[in-house]
Amino acid sequence: MKLRVGVLGGTGMVGQNYIKLLVNHPWFEVNYVAASPSSAGKSYEKAVSGRWQMSTDIPENVKEIVVKTLDDIELAKEKCDFVFSALGGKLAKEYEEKYAEIGIPVISNASAHRWTSDVPMLIPEINHDHINMIPHQQKNRGWKKGFIAVKPNCSLQSYLTPLFALHEKFKIKQIILTTLQAVSGAGHPGVPSLDIYDNIVPYIGGEEEKTEEEPMKILGKFVDGKIINEKGIDISAHCNRVPVIDGHMACVSVKFENKPEREEILKIWDEFKSLPQELDLPFAPKKPIMYIDEPNRPQTRKDRDKDKGMAIVVGRLRECNVFDYRYVGLSHNTVRGAAGGGILNAELLYKKGFLN
Amino acid sequence: MKLRVGVLGGTGMVGQNYIKLLVNHPWFEVNYVAASPSSAGKSYEKAVSGRWQMSTDIPENVKEIVVKTLDDIELAKEKCDFVFSALGGKLAKEYEEKYAEIGIPVISNASAHRWTSDVPMLIPEINHDHINMIPHQQKNRGWKKGFIAVKPNCSLQSYLTPLFALHEKFKIKQIILTTLQAVSGAGHPGVPSLDIYDNIVPYIGGEEEKTEEEPMKILGKFVDGKIINEKGIDISAHCNRVPVIDGHMACVSVKFENKPEREEILKIWDEFKSLPQELDLPFAPKKPIMYIDEPNRPQTRKDRDKDKGMAIVVGRLRECNVFDYRYVGLSHNTVRGAAGGGILNAELLYKKGFLN
Amino acid sequence: MKLRVGVLGGTGMVGQNYIKLLVNHPWFEVNYVAASPSSAGKSYEKAVSGRWQMSTDIPENVKEIVVKTLDDIELAKEKCDFVFSALGGKLAKEYEEKYAEIGIPVISNASAHRWTSDVPMLIPEINHDHINMIPHQQKNRGWKKGFIAVKPNCSLQSYLTPLFALHEKFKIKQIILTTLQAVSGAGHPGVPSLDIYDNIVPYIGGEEEKTEEEPMKILGKFVDGKIINEKGIDISAHCNRVPVIDGHMACVSVKFENKPEREEILKIWDEFKSLPQELDLPFAPKKPIMYIDEPNRPQTRKDRDKDKGMAIVVGRLRECNVFDYRYVGLSHNTVRGAAGGGILNAELLYKKGFLN
Amino acid sequence: MKLRVGVLGGTGMVGQNYIKLLVNHPWFEVNYVAASPSSAGKSYEKAVSGRWQMSTDIPENVKEIVVKTLDDIELAKEKCDFVFSALGGKLAKEYEEKYAEIGIPVISNASAHRWTSDVPMLIPEINHDHINMIPHQQKNRGWKKGFIAVKPNCSLQSYLTPLFALHEKFKIKQIILTTLQAVSGAGHPGVPSLDIYDNIVPYIGGEEEKTEEEPMKILGKFVDGKIINEKGIDISAHCNRVPVIDGHMACVSVKFENKPEREEILKIWDEFKSLPQELDLPFAPKKPIMYIDEPNRPQTRKDRDKDKGMAIVVGRLRECNVFDYRYVGLSHNTVRGAAGGGILNAELLYKKGFLN
Repeated sequence: MKLRVGVLGGTGMVGQNYIKLLVNHPWFEVNYVAASPSSAGKSYEKAVSGRWQMSTDIPENVKEIVVKTLDDIELAKEKCDFVFSALGGKLAKEYEEKYAEIGIPVISNASAHRWTSDVPMLIPEINHDHINMIPHQQKNRGWKKGFIAVKPNCSLQSYLTPLFALHEKFKIKQIILTTLQAVSGAGHPGVPSLDIYDNIVPYIGGEEEKTEEEPMKILGKFVDGKIINEKGIDISAHCNRVPVIDGHMACVSVKFENKPEREEILKIWDEFKSLPQELDLPFAPKKPIMYIDEPNRPQTRKDRDKDKGMAIVVGRLRECNVFDYRYVGLSHNTVRGAAGGGILNAELLYKKGFLN
Repeated sequence: MKLRVGVLGGTGMVGQNYIKLLVNHPWFEVNYVAASPSSAGKSYEKAVSGRWQMSTDIPENVKEIVVKTLDDIELAKEKCDFVFSALGGKLAKEYEEKYAEIGIPVISNASAHRWTSDVPMLIPEINHDHINMIPHQQKNRGWKKGFIAVKPNCSLQSYLTPLFALHEKFKIKQIILTTLQAVSGAGHPGVPSLDIYDNIVPYIGGEEEKTEEEPMKILGKFVDGKIINEKGIDISAHCNRVPVIDGHMACVSVKFENKPEREEILKIWDEFKSLPQELDLPFAPKKPIMYIDEPNRPQTRKDRDKDKGMAIVVGRLRECNVFDYRYVGLSHNTVRGAAGGGILNAELLYKKGFLN
Repeated sequence: MKLRVGVLGGTGMVGQNYIKLLVNHPWFEVNYVAASPSSAGKSYEKAVSGRWQMSTDIPENVKEIVVKTLDDIELAKEKCDFVFSALGGKLAKEYEEKYAEIGIPVISNASAHRWTSDVPMLIPEINHDHINMIPHQQKNRGWKKGFIAVKPNCSLQSYLTPLFALHEKFKIKQIILTTLQAVSGAGHPGVPSLDIYDNIVPYIGGEEEKTEEEPMKILGKFVDGKIINEKGIDISAHCNRVPVIDGHMACVSVKFENKPEREEILKIWDEFKSLPQELDLPFAPKKPIMYIDEPNRPQTRKDRDKDKGMAIVVGRLRECNVFDYRYVGLSHNTVRGAAGGGILNAELLYKKGFLN
Repeated sequence: MKLRVGVLGGTGMVGQNYIKLLVNHPWFEVNYVAASPSSAGKSYEKAVSGRWQMSTDIPENVKEIVVKTLDDIELAKEKCDFVFSALGGKLAKEYEEKYAEIGIPVISNASAHRWTSDVPMLIPEINHDHINMIPHQQKNRGWKKGFIAVKPNCSLQSYLTPLFALHEKFKIKQIILTTLQAVSGAGHPGVPSLDIYDNIVPYIGGEEEKTEEEPMKILGKFVDGKIINEKGIDISAHCNRVPVIDGHMACVSVKFENKPEREEILKIWDEFKSLPQELDLPFAPKKPIMYIDEPNRPQTRKDRDKDKGMAIVVGRLRECNVFDYRYVGLSHNTVRGAAGGGILNAELLYKKGFLN
């Protein structure tokens, strides 16, 4: 028996990605969708008519689901073992706690609760132990089955895991990075074609702050029921919107407390595995850090789909003239950086017993 | 009477840009073109038939010029007061000295002589005094009228002038930058569409080295007939090819010996002028450093043509979490960074009496 | 003394194009802008802050103009000798007659009055005599100085003038054409990047109907105070949105009553001139139909700017296996097809005494 | 036991597509690759290093295959039950007959033998019975096991099958169509980015002729050991290169001898199946003609991958003002139009006993 899944904000672009990626999932099955009042009451197929953005068809089992409003929480409780929240910031703030309170686990893409102190912000390969925050969250708030777990911003996926793999041994001190981010990161309608075709926009509102600050919580230690944020790493991010459809790239310069040998780094990356790999979670990439040796890789279009879009693809590790090393990282922003990352979080939580 | 100009490599893309930009130039007139043997003997119009890349038509006065080979040096001497060299590296190495030796000043885009110690590498707003190297060059080699002067790589135009404006007072120590470079930088046929459409290529052969090293000579002091390269600045460059047609952008983090106030920087940039502006050279931008205050500028397509494509357009000056400041720079790579920059060099040399 | 011009809808994309193109116009000067209430009361510079789409700067003389609402008609009368209407369909319907009624000539881009029987729909090279409809329009409505004149849809510019040049002598019977239209035709924000990048959309709402029907009025005869629509030409249009910024292309197959020789067609096109050329109107292209002989032209990016973007660029005239001939036409949709075409209409009307 | 497959020209782009698409094929297994002398002697992985264009990795079982030259025909005979030819025109002309003569069936993408009278040009849903030409071909030439079978040009896939489905009943008389073809159709390096970015090129050498003429053979009848070409259909094609990566679209106007009702057409398309579907061939699309009802479909990026890229996706069926009907067709040019189509041909031939 598969767990029954709801998608909040299921008609938007992140929601559509969840519905697409969950087709034939071995453990989860979509059987509930909530969205805005303008969609409510329609079949999912009708509700997304003319704005289904995925290249695969709407899954057969979802087409006929009648979309509900976000306020149909009681019904959601009947129909869902847990929900993915693909809500925008404002609605997330308003609704996610309501769902959790009534007893529905909420696995969210939104930024609303990333800095809520008892909510874990998860990249399962990095801080899977932060899920242990959940019982404390439930106790704090008097919740029984429900809770909120979130994932971080898509922009940091392409650079953080490779650094985490090196942090314990060599201690990262300073990072200067530039991101080259795809238009799909802004959703649909999102970026007007006239604003990005043959153009670079060197600014994405709020993105540099998230890229610089969220790693502090993710790299934090879970101690005595609290997440103690990392300190002592300075990060400076330049975030750019570039004319590619999918895939966020980062050009990274990094300084360590103890400078490793290049070969050490490559070995650590090559051998890096974490709990999702050990548990063999369905959405876990086999090799979370995939290094490509050719001098002109990774490339956005050619490498973003590696390992179902869940791998962090890395290349061009070389000495930096100013810091210690430079490299290029790439991750698929709507898979690893959004719905795929959310599903991996759910798989981890399921295996660890938080969803039953 | 205008000076008579030859273009070496006049049928390639940089050569075409020279011919386009020199239309109606107040001082210079193209009346000679040399190119490969396959073009030689044809009218210019025939020679570029099917591969004229400019959006304006071939200038009327150039259409009928019969293209010569690079070996027709004697003829070039008769027909030209000086030449622009738009030759590739290998041919530049082979021919530029021959032209100079016979008495023809060579103003070059090529990298062949950038590191030749008695050849000045000019950005007129920065190191116009390096033209004083020329008499020494002529003396060293026993040349009379001929000489070679070069311009640097296009990738550093977008970041170096703004830093130079601050360097004397605040001393730059460290720079980490990422460039986002247009496909026109690779010439034609250049980058295959399948390699760059919906894609980022985080590597351009040799480009990072040039971006890091050439500033040392440009910022050098001309003392006692020698250029003493700058020392004490560390530069680390990540160079990317991105899907835009024209315009090289740079995201820059910089550390100074003495950190200025933000307002000081803005004031210096706003007031920055140099010899090309004082001499009112035709291709000199009125404001060499044009700062745009809107938070999401400069943008490649929307700002690359500012002041005939000769301005360095700058924006987003803000504190850096790791170094002192961050900003974004943009310059038009085929204008400021190539033919336009070459013409500005020629204008400076003309006004200073080196071309008559 | 220049005529004082107002732009209705001056902050939108067509309005911005008018303001850009009217810089330094020898006869007209913008000194009034009306737009939506959210812009009203602000300086033009403030009103378009963050959404100025042009690659040149806002003209100095327009920056400080205080934007008014569309309802400030009395003020418009004081300040304007005539207005360009860049309004959307609904607002055009509501306001254009009000402006005309109070005595302000309205030269419009909108579709609202294209089929109003006493309103001329002008392509000056084709039906300049339709301006003689204006006195009848004024008489019909009891208007004195005011009137409405419109231009047709941008999609038909690239194919209609070349056919008109042949129509009188050879009688066009059937046309099947496919358009490849730029994203700028949809304004800003217009087409989302996710909907057009690496994509073709074979549908633009209402565009095929306009492309097929408007030529009937344009090619109509002005007889006894009436425009008698053309009959006997069947047109079938396939309209596509393609990922180019500017420039509408059309692939045309045409059948005549009397099939001309290819050389006849080329001669007629080459020699074609009309009233705008005879009057030497500032925005009139020197050669309204510019034929390019190279087999792979016209190309959208490389040819759209020919003759200030006002030429119809044509190529590939060859026999059709089904009809008589095939060819490719191109015109710049935001210049010839929008603001530039509107300005040419105004120039014609001015020279013919309708604006004083 | 799978059949052992060779790929001639296996390092080029069509060859890479074959190798990618044949991964895990139930009947065929690549175990031989021949290419140019510069690749010969290297492992496949080395031979394509830096120019592997596929978004999936090189299949493990192919990486270590040592590439041979085209002249190693004897070896090919030992190693292959049949070969796919992804050779360019000239090499195809030179080599395909040599392979067939020695006893190796050649299933080719090349145009070299499309008009050879005893070589079938196959679209399995249309003219599967043309495979019966093969015994005659073998007899004509004294070949035993070897033969040549080819597929047509990619540009006609998107419009021909939908017309074939209607032809028998309603008799097609005239077709005027415009194609919008992807850059991948030109291979790699193929179209330079500067020639197609923000641009349309209304010309592809030789493409209009192929699009117009090849249908005559494909729609021909196999009678008495001969293919009698279709007559009485006039086709006029306008072929354009457009800035999309994959997917050829066609805008089609068609005239029948007997005009069907719109509903009849839709019903025939909906129910259309042919031998590949009956035989349940692995690469056969379930629905060879997939009609999408939404008014703005098919779209190139969003629909090209339908049914593994093997479906012909059709939409916008509507009356034509000049002919009877208009519609839009789309097919994936590197799958259905190239390697996928070749594999489907091989599957048909295998099932029919020609490959054992």
